[in-house]
Amino acid sequence: MRTVIGVDAGGTSTKALLVDETGRRRGTGRAGPGNPTSAGLELAAGNLVDAAAAAWAAREDTALEAPERVVITAAGVTGEKLLRRVQAAWACPVEIVGDVLGAWFSAATEPDGAVLIVGTGTTAARIEGGELVRTADGLGWLLGDAGSGFWVGREVMRAAASDLDRHGPATALTEGVLAQVGDLGPVNAVPWRDPLLTGLVSWVYRQRPVQLAAFAPLAFAAASEGDAVAAGIVADAAAHVLHRAEQVMDEGGSPMVLTGGLLGEGSPIAAALAARWPGRTRRAADGTAGAAMLALRRAGLDAGPAHLERVRAAGGS
Amino acid sequence: MRTVIGVDAGGTSTKALLVDETGRRRGTGRAGPGNPTSAGLELAAGNLVDAAAAAWAAREDTALEAPERVVITAAGVTGEKLLRRVQAAWACPVEIVGDVLGAWFSAATEPDGAVLIVGTGTTAARIEGGELVRTADGLGWLLGDAGSGFWVGREVMRAAASDLDRHGPATALTEGVLAQVGDLGPVNAVPWRDPLLTGLVSWVYRQRPVQLAAFAPLAFAAASEGDAVAAGIVADAAAHVLHRAEQVMDEGGSPMVLTGGLLGEGSPIAAALAARWPGRTRRAADGTAGAAMLALRRAGLDAGPAHLERVRAAGGS
Repeated sequence: MRTVIGVDAGGTSTKALLVDETGRRRGTGRAGPGNPTSAGLELAAGNLVDAAAAAWAAREDTALEAPERVVITAAGVTGEKLLRRVQAAWACPVEIVGDVLGAWFSAATEPDGAVLIVGTGTTAARIEGGELVRTADGLGWLLGDAGSGFWVGREVMRAAASDLDRHGPATALTEGVLAQVGDLGPVNAVPWRDPLLTGLVSWVYRQRPVQLAAFAPLAFAAASEGDAVAAGIVADAAAHVLHRAEQVMDEGGSPMVLTGGLLGEGSPIAAALAARWPGRTRRAADGTAGAAMLALRRAGLDAGPAHLERVRAAGGS
Repeated sequence: MRTVIGVDAGGTSTKALLVDETGRRRGTGRAGPGNPTSAGLELAAGNLVDAAAAAWAAREDTALEAPERVVITAAGVTGEKLLRRVQAAWACPVEIVGDVLGAWFSAATEPDGAVLIVGTGTTAARIEGGELVRTADGLGWLLGDAGSGFWVGREVMRAAASDLDRHGPATALTEGVLAQVGDLGPVNAVPWRDPLLTGLVSWVYRQRPVQLAAFAPLAFAAASEGDAVAAGIVADAAAHVLHRAEQVMDEGGSPMVLTGGLLGEGSPIAAALAARWPGRTRRAADGTAGAAMLALRRAGLDAGPAHLERVRAAGGS
């Protein structure tokens, strides 16, 4: 049986999946961080090789042919240097593709459609002929990423600050934010401003901006309990995400693959997308599934829905 | 004749003004940066002392009594240490107050009213009995400062990025932004995005966020030439600023003193404020004027409108 390996390079861990030509799972492997942006080139390359080697070593059927392709999916990595290091460890061709294609192939075998990632950032992407042809947003926290985890978290923090400053409406988010922050640290109180606000503002500017994403869950919780300010933030986030999705969706029946922390189980944003495009939204699977499916295609195998079902089967190996 | 000195501690230069008990200007002085946050404590303290000494040395009437008070206005400085250093150089009491009070006393002799600063940030302040009693906003670029130079500049950059990304409407701001940025530097072009956008996004994230304030003038220029996106940004900015002003304005006839780069001559935001509160908006004068007026009051002199007129008289010394 012919085989390929799919690798998902994450910021905290790297996972690999060995599949055979039918899509059956034959071995999995795991290693440390595989993203060179955060882990550095040497460590990331080492972990990518280790995870793939572990998946290969984990096979029970020793008669399997050596892998013909390794496909690695990674967020925001183009990495010629990284590719050369990993390629040096394998006899077969190795390819690194973005997380958009990884998400797409983990849930779709059609040629065309869309991918929507709403995590720390927001990226809508158009897929045609199995290739990424256009994105909408994904411009980062300062210029875009509307409706993302950062965006929602920042709106939560702004709402709490405006409430404490009394130039914004009262909201349950204020209590939630103060509870989540905990110790505000030293406060240089001034007579013309609420000391809690003075402390909170100082605290926020001691963080990196993107860390405000940690406050996003408060919006969803408070909105579900009827807080009007929180409900407004969630509705705005959904509207922004819908607008981005509209840039990459067609009028046909092609699917949209959803992924990212804000589109998980019970997500009101995912629900809004499903209501707008009934029957066309799907959730992405584990990152190794998309990488393995793409590796099968790159090996010249006609990987269709039956392959995808087997690749996605939990506990297959 | 009794005298006092007012000092305006700026980030690039420090100015001082010697006035007599009638408010007549008797000498001016100038020195380097006087803000300890940017210049450091030693340099700032030295420049504050030098500027005041220069104003005292510049007097033509050698029979004037030695200054009874020195009042220093500075943005965002509480500075006990700075005060002790400057106090050591003068026999009379020295006081450091915020730029809000400096702006207020440069244009008002009434007990109550409001100050509105719209520069890089947005701060609305309530003055009662000549003291700062409450602020609205002034929460910095990440949490507030709605309608400020940073806010407008960031909206300009977002509008240009959204236009290039084609998820936002076409706008003349795009051309303006690209012209102002000039050389984008090395661009790692990708097939699914306009290379100008890829270059612009990379360029923006190489700057400090507050530097986006430099793009605010593009909004006012394009709005005046009929660009709908720019007009929308300016209208939103004005609405945000008006909302902050409403938090600190009363229903009586008390004045509002305007200052900051976005409320200067020809400002549409200042015009919106004047339309909302006819006859009640005034422009702040030179920072030394407010400091000198406050110094007169602190010396126990009844500094009224006639004093203010003399303090503000251009070329008085």
